[in-house]
Amino acid sequence: MIHSDVRPFQFDSSSQKLILLDQLALPETERHITLNTVEDVAAAITDMVVRGAPAIGITAAFGIFYAAKSAWHAPNKLQIIQNAKTLLASTRPTAVNLFWALERMMAAVKTHLNDPTPAAILNEAMDIWREDVEMNQKMAVRGADEIGTVKNILTHCNAGALATGGLGTALGVIREIDSRQKTSTPLHVWVDETRPYLQGARLTSWELMKDGIDCTLITDSMAAFLMKEKSVDAVIVGADRIAKNYDVANKIGTYALAVLALYHKIPFYVAAPDSTFDPAVQTGRDIAIEERSSDEIVIVKGRRIAPDGVKTRHPAFDVTPHELITGIITPSQIIRPLKINS
Amino acid sequence: MIHSDVRPFQFDSSSQKLILLDQLALPETERHITLNTVEDVAAAITDMVVRGAPAIGITAAFGIFYAAKSAWHAPNKLQIIQNAKTLLASTRPTAVNLFWALERMMAAVKTHLNDPTPAAILNEAMDIWREDVEMNQKMAVRGADEIGTVKNILTHCNAGALATGGLGTALGVIREIDSRQKTSTPLHVWVDETRPYLQGARLTSWELMKDGIDCTLITDSMAAFLMKEKSVDAVIVGADRIAKNYDVANKIGTYALAVLALYHKIPFYVAAPDSTFDPAVQTGRDIAIEERSSDEIVIVKGRRIAPDGVKTRHPAFDVTPHELITGIITPSQIIRPLKINS
Repeated sequence: MIHSDVRPFQFDSSSQKLILLDQLALPETERHITLNTVEDVAAAITDMVVRGAPAIGITAAFGIFYAAKSAWHAPNKLQIIQNAKTLLASTRPTAVNLFWALERMMAAVKTHLNDPTPAAILNEAMDIWREDVEMNQKMAVRGADEIGTVKNILTHCNAGALATGGLGTALGVIREIDSRQKTSTPLHVWVDETRPYLQGARLTSWELMKDGIDCTLITDSMAAFLMKEKSVDAVIVGADRIAKNYDVANKIGTYALAVLALYHKIPFYVAAPDSTFDPAVQTGRDIAIEERSSDEIVIVKGRRIAPDGVKTRHPAFDVTPHELITGIITPSQIIRPLKINS
Repeated sequence: MIHSDVRPFQFDSSSQKLILLDQLALPETERHITLNTVEDVAAAITDMVVRGAPAIGITAAFGIFYAAKSAWHAPNKLQIIQNAKTLLASTRPTAVNLFWALERMMAAVKTHLNDPTPAAILNEAMDIWREDVEMNQKMAVRGADEIGTVKNILTHCNAGALATGGLGTALGVIREIDSRQKTSTPLHVWVDETRPYLQGARLTSWELMKDGIDCTLITDSMAAFLMKEKSVDAVIVGADRIAKNYDVANKIGTYALAVLALYHKIPFYVAAPDSTFDPAVQTGRDIAIEERSSDEIVIVKGRRIAPDGVKTRHPAFDVTPHELITGIITPSQIIRPLKINS
């Protein structure tokens, strides 16, 4: 079974507090942040100290536990916890894992409302975390079986250990392929830097280098060049929300890669745990796309890169229609959207 | 006739020196650099104080004049000037305008070798500059006639006044369209930031804002998203070298845009003066693609954005095959590569 040296979460059982690896400080500094309150949890998600759809879900689950713990003996505890849920739900709109985790936690709260302690609520959050790692393990094996032997794989954003409970969705599959091919055909990973937030440059390359996986950083605009020179055998990305018709919302730039992969006849895979599927959303058109601030485009590491007063657009995600997706790798199956929908 | 307030070159006639607007200092500072020697000229091109295929050609032409002026009364003046040509030819490999301008200047040197002064050599450099601006004017009119009324046009890198003698190739066309539509359908320009060197963010947005043309900066990864939401009516870019079969080398990221434009049924235009065509090169496969340093990817405005020791690729250009190009706008005609080659 594969593993990773990257630990995005730790839980301190004596203080019952969640400790995050601060993703804003990477790759320069491995700094950890202890979350003390539900407000801390919400801010960590909004400010992207933690990001990645499954990781956001896990963090929010602990947010509900924090609220439950502090309110457990209050007369209006359900109201207090529901307020916490409202706060947490307002942090980021696109990744559905957030809402899925909040609903699951609220169901646990209601079931155990009369328990003497919120131990069952903590257990539920721990289960969400543990199950996410298990799902990553299953996706890794299933995805590696599906993709087979490849020399060069390209990924976008960070769908790694840092985006999940550990291991990663797309990077879990990459870790498994790398592990299988170590002694035969060494795997090489192209890492899209993923502007504007540079998750690829800052996080994915750091994560792969830490685990000793051969990788090369490129700008997003170079992927097509590499596809044309036949240096990309497959593309694999994560997902933030998957509609009922298997349209996939993921980090801005994913849709372009899918179109480019189709043009170059390169298989395009999405890896996602069960919590990323949103049966309430019929198609990608119904997925809310978060627009983030202009500063994230015009300021890089504190330095301005464009004229004062320039207008920007900043959709943080895009939707890849199902007809561009070779396969969605889930813990239980490979979904082939085109065959199902055609 | 359109004009631009952006002045990339000035020639000081009393000192006979070329003064460049320092493109490395933009958009924060409008700083000018006086070139004193042919070595200054070569360094300005290599270091990208001046960039853009036609602008590189013009600058190199003045480099030959500098060499001629200092060597005019030396016994081995042709050898000295030829050494200067070799130096200038080694600065950047992809843009053919550089080599075209050097050949033209050397022909003038040989014709006028026995003149009492190098005045004719200076005239030749001034002619190259003046003719470039005239070609931009012609392309602007021809391109605007061809493209017709558009609301939203997308451009990549900087094919503007800053990349030419003035006005620009792609941005010349955009200036003309903007001027025609000012009172009817205001034009809006999407500006790709153009990683890694950020010519779009730093130069194109500055240039358009300076001339009062409505524009919005995006990351390169957002173009496909905007095409999908039908916010892009046409794409127009410049070129660094055009092969005999009309394959086009241009800034990295251009090829991806051409594929995306095809998929979204959006016309894709290239604007280029005569000096960008290289009849000696049969197809795009024969064009040398400059690989630049890793630092330009991992360091942005002096700040590191990726882990120490990360590997990178940095092809500075890519080749767009002729079959993806709706039209090449030249001073004398619209070339339709697909019809000619099919």
